[in-house]
Amino acid sequence: MSNRLPTLAVVGATGAVGSVMRDILTERPNVWGEIRLIASPRSAGKVLSVRGEDVTVQALAPEVFDGVDVAMFDVPDEVSKEWAPVAAARGAVAVDNSGAFRLDPDVPLVVPEVNADQVGNRPRGIIANPNCTTLSMIVAIGALHRAYGVKDLVVSSYQAASGSGQEGIDTLRDQTATVAAERNLGNEAGDVRAAVDELGPFPAPLAYNVVPWAGSLKDDGYSSEELKVRNESRKILGLPDLRVAATCVRVPVITTHALTVHATFDSEVPAEDARKLLANAEGVEVLDDPAKGEFPTPADVVGTDPTWVGRIRQSIDDPTSLDLFLCGDNLRKGAALNTAQIAEVVAREFTQD
Amino acid sequence: MSNRLPTLAVVGATGAVGSVMRDILTERPNVWGEIRLIASPRSAGKVLSVRGEDVTVQALAPEVFDGVDVAMFDVPDEVSKEWAPVAAARGAVAVDNSGAFRLDPDVPLVVPEVNADQVGNRPRGIIANPNCTTLSMIVAIGALHRAYGVKDLVVSSYQAASGSGQEGIDTLRDQTATVAAERNLGNEAGDVRAAVDELGPFPAPLAYNVVPWAGSLKDDGYSSEELKVRNESRKILGLPDLRVAATCVRVPVITTHALTVHATFDSEVPAEDARKLLANAEGVEVLDDPAKGEFPTPADVVGTDPTWVGRIRQSIDDPTSLDLFLCGDNLRKGAALNTAQIAEVVAREFTQD
Repeated sequence: MSNRLPTLAVVGATGAVGSVMRDILTERPNVWGEIRLIASPRSAGKVLSVRGEDVTVQALAPEVFDGVDVAMFDVPDEVSKEWAPVAAARGAVAVDNSGAFRLDPDVPLVVPEVNADQVGNRPRGIIANPNCTTLSMIVAIGALHRAYGVKDLVVSSYQAASGSGQEGIDTLRDQTATVAAERNLGNEAGDVRAAVDELGPFPAPLAYNVVPWAGSLKDDGYSSEELKVRNESRKILGLPDLRVAATCVRVPVITTHALTVHATFDSEVPAEDARKLLANAEGVEVLDDPAKGEFPTPADVVGTDPTWVGRIRQSIDDPTSLDLFLCGDNLRKGAALNTAQIAEVVAREFTQD
Repeated sequence: MSNRLPTLAVVGATGAVGSVMRDILTERPNVWGEIRLIASPRSAGKVLSVRGEDVTVQALAPEVFDGVDVAMFDVPDEVSKEWAPVAAARGAVAVDNSGAFRLDPDVPLVVPEVNADQVGNRPRGIIANPNCTTLSMIVAIGALHRAYGVKDLVVSSYQAASGSGQEGIDTLRDQTATVAAERNLGNEAGDVRAAVDELGPFPAPLAYNVVPWAGSLKDDGYSSEELKVRNESRKILGLPDLRVAATCVRVPVITTHALTVHATFDSEVPAEDARKLLANAEGVEVLDDPAKGEFPTPADVVGTDPTWVGRIRQSIDDPTSLDLFLCGDNLRKGAALNTAQIAEVVAREFTQD
């Protein structure tokens, strides 16, 4: 083994997730030698800060990966599809946060708290990072699965606008200003729709509304987001037959996804046992005392790293089921943080004896 | 049988639901003779409009029920508990929209599209109207149950602020103005909480947030709202062993509750069959063509009467389950409209041959 600090490339360093990634690399214990920031030619030459150092952004090109040990990709699917293999061919381990490789059988889909052991199993030199909605629950579900064996998940999401990037954030802020300006909006059919003239990336107004759609239309009326929750949960947990029913709904929250999960296990799960187990699980925080008004909400969770779990109840009519409410920052654990954590697992290969 | 138009009393005529009730009585085909408006002594003497007539509000007292055939109650539980029996003792049929009598075995809990046959079964002279969250789904679930036999419901709510009355509406409007005024709120933990100084009836900020709590704390960590969804669904459908798991979450919407429902039946339910059945069901509208961006949202549904259903999918991993997204105006079908419909069923007893 070599014993040097590995070189990291951050591809997509100027986007919404890339920006959070630079914060996370600055905050976390440093395991990197050189850090290169890569973006589209349009952003090349910009100087951005990471770890307190000024770094000049380079344009995406094959040569930028020469000498790179780990390359993180926070870019659209089609950019990852083309460029992650280029990075891998030049010797880098590509850690990709797009949907391009998540279900590729030769690409592990990794959540370090759940399946860090899969990191080395990467014949294509690519490791995939899950979708943000899956990531908002899977650390907690993985901990429960190890103890009780999960067999069925019913998931409903309360997804934040920033899941649709900066355009999503700006759209919700603009619409919120519009509905706030007119005191009586929201009482009559169509009045919010009439007042809001820019839908941005959403198929209906989001301010004073909830929209049961995220992603693109797939078979049988499912959205791509719903299929991701199902298929990625199965792969991460190593349960190809897990039953998953998901409905994804956008809500007027800037950042932090929330989810309700009805999870059914192989055996009975008393709520108090689940609460203790989750309180001791890596990457999970329990906030569950409704008598004191304690449960997680996006406004409290945004900007933090863990998966927050509250409203832990054993189902009244099925003692093998739990009903949970979970929150996770979709830009941190849901994207940049998990990518950074995967990259850190790879970095250990370079520095361990 | 007599053949006269019955006399109606509206108790709670000045409240949020009472106000919608006066609109509904004005809009619907008239089946009433005299309509009396009743409220607390504080509101007595006010002149309010119903059916285009000016009516002077009377203070709640035993004598106001003399000669009344049907008395609707849209008042808090404790007021109903005291006064519905008084109205019944004076010969009126009390139709009560509080939680006071819903689970009383001698009081039918009625949704006319589902169990109108229960109206006559009222030994106490009282008929109960269900909770708004239950009402936002039960007409559609009832129609599916008649065809396929429902055995399991997993429900997650997206509940509007007006479920907490005018104070809930005012609180959300004020908080929305606050977050709209400061462009960057919503990115950092606690900043919405710091900006919002009035929580009103909610246990956490509701603007730019979702709050997994509605009602009061009951056994085993359940909220009263979640138990209502379970217990009232069982009673209305006549299925005392129905398995129901509900998680109730407040969202920043003014009016119209939305719900996701994962419903499991005795037999397989193809989505297309369910769609056709629901499209033909009384009181249900189907809006389900995601390719055209068609699904119900609260902003489109508010102010309308039906239960709207979209996102109708057969669960991928269980052909006996459907995943649905439903919306219903919590002040209309969820409260005033259903009460009016029950009262109209009773009114027919006075006018039919």
